[in-house]
Amino acid sequence: MTFTKIQPPHISFFSNLLGEKYVLCDSENLDRCASDETEDLHYLPEVVLQPGLVEEVSAIMKYCNDQVIPVTPRGAGTGLSGGALPVFGGVVLDMKRFNKILHVDKRNFQVTTEPGVITQELQEHLKAEGLFYPPDPASKGSCFIGGNVSENSGGPRAVKYGVVKDYVLNLEVVLPNGEVIWTGANVLKNATGYNLTQLVVGSEGTLCIITRIVLRLIPAVKHDLLLLVPFRSAVQACEAVNAIFLAGYTPSALEFMERDALEWSMRFVQATGIHLPADIAAHLLIEVDGNHMEELCRDAEAISQIVQQYDIDEVLFADSHEQKQMLWTLRRKVGEAVKSNSIYKEEDTVVPRAELPELLQIIKSLGREFGFHSVCYGHAGDGNLHVNIVKDNMSDADWNEKLPQGIRRLFKEVVRMGGTISGEHGIGLVQRDYMDIAFNPVQMALMRQIKQLFDPKGILNPGKILTSL
Amino acid sequence: MTFTKIQPPHISFFSNLLGEKYVLCDSENLDRCASDETEDLHYLPEVVLQPGLVEEVSAIMKYCNDQVIPVTPRGAGTGLSGGALPVFGGVVLDMKRFNKILHVDKRNFQVTTEPGVITQELQEHLKAEGLFYPPDPASKGSCFIGGNVSENSGGPRAVKYGVVKDYVLNLEVVLPNGEVIWTGANVLKNATGYNLTQLVVGSEGTLCIITRIVLRLIPAVKHDLLLLVPFRSAVQACEAVNAIFLAGYTPSALEFMERDALEWSMRFVQATGIHLPADIAAHLLIEVDGNHMEELCRDAEAISQIVQQYDIDEVLFADSHEQKQMLWTLRRKVGEAVKSNSIYKEEDTVVPRAELPELLQIIKSLGREFGFHSVCYGHAGDGNLHVNIVKDNMSDADWNEKLPQGIRRLFKEVVRMGGTISGEHGIGLVQRDYMDIAFNPVQMALMRQIKQLFDPKGILNPGKILTSL
Repeated sequence: MTFTKIQPPHISFFSNLLGEKYVLCDSENLDRCASDETEDLHYLPEVVLQPGLVEEVSAIMKYCNDQVIPVTPRGAGTGLSGGALPVFGGVVLDMKRFNKILHVDKRNFQVTTEPGVITQELQEHLKAEGLFYPPDPASKGSCFIGGNVSENSGGPRAVKYGVVKDYVLNLEVVLPNGEVIWTGANVLKNATGYNLTQLVVGSEGTLCIITRIVLRLIPAVKHDLLLLVPFRSAVQACEAVNAIFLAGYTPSALEFMERDALEWSMRFVQATGIHLPADIAAHLLIEVDGNHMEELCRDAEAISQIVQQYDIDEVLFADSHEQKQMLWTLRRKVGEAVKSNSIYKEEDTVVPRAELPELLQIIKSLGREFGFHSVCYGHAGDGNLHVNIVKDNMSDADWNEKLPQGIRRLFKEVVRMGGTISGEHGIGLVQRDYMDIAFNPVQMALMRQIKQLFDPKGILNPGKILTSL
Repeated sequence: MTFTKIQPPHISFFSNLLGEKYVLCDSENLDRCASDETEDLHYLPEVVLQPGLVEEVSAIMKYCNDQVIPVTPRGAGTGLSGGALPVFGGVVLDMKRFNKILHVDKRNFQVTTEPGVITQELQEHLKAEGLFYPPDPASKGSCFIGGNVSENSGGPRAVKYGVVKDYVLNLEVVLPNGEVIWTGANVLKNATGYNLTQLVVGSEGTLCIITRIVLRLIPAVKHDLLLLVPFRSAVQACEAVNAIFLAGYTPSALEFMERDALEWSMRFVQATGIHLPADIAAHLLIEVDGNHMEELCRDAEAISQIVQQYDIDEVLFADSHEQKQMLWTLRRKVGEAVKSNSIYKEEDTVVPRAELPELLQIIKSLGREFGFHSVCYGHAGDGNLHVNIVKDNMSDADWNEKLPQGIRRLFKEVVRMGGTISGEHGIGLVQRDYMDIAFNPVQMALMRQIKQLFDPKGILNPGKILTSL
């Protein structure tokens, strides 16, 4: 791939288009856009552009396409697979000025928003209107809704409410040649041509730039109850997950945390309220939600009965808003806590739910074989287990050469179980070289051709998902 | 497009491959595969092939691709947009021998099935295992699950449970060149590459042949309640739909029927149990479902209070399984009843839900302007209104020339309201010439390129969705 390096005439073009204020070449901004939340990776862009209008995005794309300048779109930079990293330099298209919630259509349970709105702010805005947008990635307090759409993000509530793709009705996007189109229509059912919307959701900014998003919403839910269940066996905790579903219950969250995950997170946020006996190996954090408290109590009680079949310690029912918040904070901070502790790699394995106990055993067994320590946690109700591999005392040689072999083995096992290599973090840069495990050459060729169709010159987020055009 | 006509050597190839028994050239079979349930359309194929194995489908596709013979896949032939019609002759690929439910994975709430299984039989098989596959097109007693996936079908339950696309996890497909691939993985969350699965769902047999389907399932639901609400104003009935959602209720079905729809259906099935006073203009058929009868009673009562705000006659609570069946039969038979009454065209409009009253008024106003009578009914809870235009006394000239202008106007209004031209029936042959209303040349070019990418020679279901390659 031969990309054009940014030269003064390019900068002049961008400055004329956007105003100098939104064409950033200072080291602070270049540095800010050189990283996201993926490991310790760092790739400097040559310029950061901050367009505010779709017409500006269109003009930038057309120009960069003509000039063969790589463009990497960036949301809030909270991604975990390196999707926002400008690995070939060029332009970072910083979407932070696309920060308006354009239209809450309460009558139709829809919202039209720009991509640079923080997910939690969008949710709170909607909640005040009695509306609910469920997907809640752990980074919801800082991530952008546009990034969520690009990655097809999940989060704890996905187990009951689905992931981002289940809420996206329609997208306004700018193609690499500058053309602006909508991908679908603002309707709940659509059997009109190929599903361009779902092709863009989860395409990680490699096909087009998202400039407007229409989401379907549901009525706000009034109540929830939260239980923390301590298990003496991590495998039993995984088994209990399926027992709850087989009994006919669909919790609004069903999260698994290995002992290390909870313990490290407690230390990280300096939480003191949880008693963690020495014999506890893992926890399930279980939430039920609905509009009628008596029904929730009944369901929570039934779930509590189901988990009693296993070797557990006392179930903690969160008895206040503060305690719920604290438990959720502990869960959400696991990733950061692990990160603060050691160099690490995070894998985002997903398998059919009932295969979780086997997956956990395989991870631990591979850890013994390849000499790595892992902290596992995640959305057990979806079969989506995050595997944080910590470097600890591993030598650099083992970390760089032996570990990738271990990850390769893990992904092969995941695929053998009917699963795949990313449930919600995306492929981006860091899982790209494992795509051959999930897909054969025919599948890969189809994906490559789809990329070529949208982006014939390969200027848009190059180096992501696919190794090359 | 220049396709090869079927000659004796082709027949020999097919006979050697499948056995003569499954290579059908008799007039009865050619005639059977010349029509589906779309209007009175009739296009004879040159041969009907009935493969039983994916390897056979692969060999047929490879051969036809090499020889440039058009192939039209066929399920049960219940489609309403002409998707299964062999408009260029050639091969009809009759998938009826792919009729096995391969694996019910109860632990993972998944089923792997072949495409030629009747949807209702699949549902009943799963129900016996405590599992639930919700999508229920009106033709569920005869349509194939493979056709449902190809069309992204809906049905009454979509309002609560979503459409077919929301249940498809993974598909085994044969590409036009004979290659066999899976489109995804058997998981609830997937952020691994482009979403090939959702590209195939709803692609109406124009991209590949579906040979295996993995569906996610949910726990079976124990109870339901059914209400029939008679309105003196059809527009008020549409308004009531939104009032129910705004009050926070999500019925498991929310169906609208104009007076004619119910009346014609009652006559068609010779139902006598419903009293239909002269001043009733429309009905809503409302179902709630769940596992706790007391909650359903509470919700049904609340919904009944909401509809009391409008000018309605007495609400009928179905008080037995038989009465529920009768009401559902009446609803499901509307299409057939209209068809038995007159030559007709069925449109499948869909708009944001709250725009339904306006849509209904526009349809009636266009009817006055273009001189057509319409019978409207459908999935009001999704904003999906079926418009059956009956020929009645219209002259052939008006039917063939004036009516398409009226439909064009209707679709333009639908798109203006944020809707689109098909909610669940697909584009197929009969809506193809209206695609320019829903999509501009850039969007159409993307779809055409996607088609070319999968099917460079254009042999697979030619003439559907797109006017030409």
